[in-house]
Amino acid sequence: MTRFHNFSAGPGVLPLEVLEEAQRDLVRHPEFGISVMESSHRAKPWVERIEGIERRLRDLAGIPDSFAVLFLQGGASSQFGMVPLNLLPEGKSADYIDTGRWSEKAIAETRKVNRVARIAGTSRETGFDRIPGHLHLDPRATYLHYTSNNTIYGTQWREAPSSEVPLVCDASSDILSKPFNFDGHDVVFAGAQKNMGPAGVTLVIVRRDALGRAPATLPTMWNYKVHADKGSMYNTPPVFAIYMVGLVLEWIARRGSLADMEARNEEKAALIYDRIDAGDFYRGHAQPGSRSRMNISFRLPSEALEATFVAEATAAGMVGLKGHRSVGGCRASIYNAMPRESVKVLAEFMQDFERRMG
Amino acid sequence: MTRFHNFSAGPGVLPLEVLEEAQRDLVRHPEFGISVMESSHRAKPWVERIEGIERRLRDLAGIPDSFAVLFLQGGASSQFGMVPLNLLPEGKSADYIDTGRWSEKAIAETRKVNRVARIAGTSRETGFDRIPGHLHLDPRATYLHYTSNNTIYGTQWREAPSSEVPLVCDASSDILSKPFNFDGHDVVFAGAQKNMGPAGVTLVIVRRDALGRAPATLPTMWNYKVHADKGSMYNTPPVFAIYMVGLVLEWIARRGSLADMEARNEEKAALIYDRIDAGDFYRGHAQPGSRSRMNISFRLPSEALEATFVAEATAAGMVGLKGHRSVGGCRASIYNAMPRESVKVLAEFMQDFERRMG
Repeated sequence: MTRFHNFSAGPGVLPLEVLEEAQRDLVRHPEFGISVMESSHRAKPWVERIEGIERRLRDLAGIPDSFAVLFLQGGASSQFGMVPLNLLPEGKSADYIDTGRWSEKAIAETRKVNRVARIAGTSRETGFDRIPGHLHLDPRATYLHYTSNNTIYGTQWREAPSSEVPLVCDASSDILSKPFNFDGHDVVFAGAQKNMGPAGVTLVIVRRDALGRAPATLPTMWNYKVHADKGSMYNTPPVFAIYMVGLVLEWIARRGSLADMEARNEEKAALIYDRIDAGDFYRGHAQPGSRSRMNISFRLPSEALEATFVAEATAAGMVGLKGHRSVGGCRASIYNAMPRESVKVLAEFMQDFERRMG
Repeated sequence: MTRFHNFSAGPGVLPLEVLEEAQRDLVRHPEFGISVMESSHRAKPWVERIEGIERRLRDLAGIPDSFAVLFLQGGASSQFGMVPLNLLPEGKSADYIDTGRWSEKAIAETRKVNRVARIAGTSRETGFDRIPGHLHLDPRATYLHYTSNNTIYGTQWREAPSSEVPLVCDASSDILSKPFNFDGHDVVFAGAQKNMGPAGVTLVIVRRDALGRAPATLPTMWNYKVHADKGSMYNTPPVFAIYMVGLVLEWIARRGSLADMEARNEEKAALIYDRIDAGDFYRGHAQPGSRSRMNISFRLPSEALEATFVAEATAAGMVGLKGHRSVGGCRASIYNAMPRESVKVLAEFMQDFERRMG
């Protein structure tokens, strides 16, 4: 009954302790007397629970009171449309920094819903192997959108871009993996399924002053203000997924602060990057200055070797290591919940594989 | 460690066997080697699983191949906007039958997104105590929308309204509770959290011929055709919630057909309605010909007695019996997963309470 080492890019690994706690209480949670999955979202134990989860998140992540915290559905893919429809009036323009696929989807969706997205910087020419150095920012832009971590190319912003206009951050793949400064942001959003919980809940942290700009014809469910005014309970929320996020937050808090989490994540990432940098056998996709602590994309000397690597790793109990088709090769996603021991198993496997095949 | 009898209107009771199965496999599902919650939606065990769930649903519910089956997010509240935005062109009109709150929300949302909703019938004058008898249908309507079961007033259509134009059915609170004839429908939608699974997944069954009418500016995530073309995997689906729906479908299939389910549901409902009809102490809200087998709303001789009833029932382990504020009184929701034994406990409590207080 050993569990696989799960290097999937998302949905990804969850803390074993959290899964065991959820398992213990699945049929009958002691505070609910039933399964959390069966609880009315209007029942007192649930209302207290979701309020406690929001409080814990605010404490842990340092979210100022000037921001609303929303638990929504539909993933980051919905946010690609909700952000411009809630924040960007027709006739105005927003800046987007293109670090590959997810930024590109946000840009395409903004244009699809008939809003103006301007590209303020891109690393397309170098295969999205870095965070763009040169930005051409529009000081009249309504906001500047960036993807804090790109899961596919394995690039990550060290800190938010410097900007005169409000920032919008897609933090889907590195939220809660390190301290985050909300200053200067209008919106920070993240699907839960990488660092926070199961798929099915999307966290949206939005500055209250930015609410209320949505056009009257925007569907109610797409209006941030509706959800902010109703404490994420305008309609039935994804109760169990939010409960799981709460357990993950408790798990993080038991292990310290987000600075502690960052230190552990850097140490884990270094185990793999050191292996990549030790020779010419493995080639990291991201340039060293733009390397992600969450997703490490790397190539081997040939596609045949890459296929063998993934097959042997799978046989050894390491799943999810095949790279995204747009980069090829291999990818190790090592989110908050990935145990250091699992990363060590992979690093040692890489060393052994290189010795045998290199 | 006894579980409460859960009479909540939704999220509602789930089958104990299903919860126990989910609990057993929560930390490590034998087919996944990890928790289902941690599985990539691109991983083979998941792709096989979701395909199997769709097949089982089609078999059980008799969904013709001419319909696409979508597992979406956002609840029925999203469907209130998605239906007109996908199906109803500007300048055309759709008919709505108003059986209270949920129909009214669908009507309001249609108008909010700038489409024409015409009321073809209502039971507002009698406090939504019945399915409207007289309908004034527009033969040029693009579709006719009805709510198959109203959770608040406890009314239910025996069969779909007779219509020359395609039907749209909000089946959120009685889906899979009895056989359903998809003929004549363009869309049947239902949040999972009453008869199918946990909150966080919405089933949308849409006739393929009705797809492709959405305006170009509709957000990608709101376009049925996108999800139909991608097998509900355009973006990360709510993996665990869909998995739970699959377990519920297997549970239903183990117990027979939807006709068997209907027989059990009628028998359960009769236990409560017989108690209501046995005297003048309890007054059912719905007229006998419109009574729901899923939600039974009833009043007692006074609000004070109603409060005592709910308090004593709660103390006796029966939760969720307080009626919706727009009807008042009490409500017993007895979905598919509600055991006959729990309904008997309630019926006997009602008899005892009447004997003591009546």
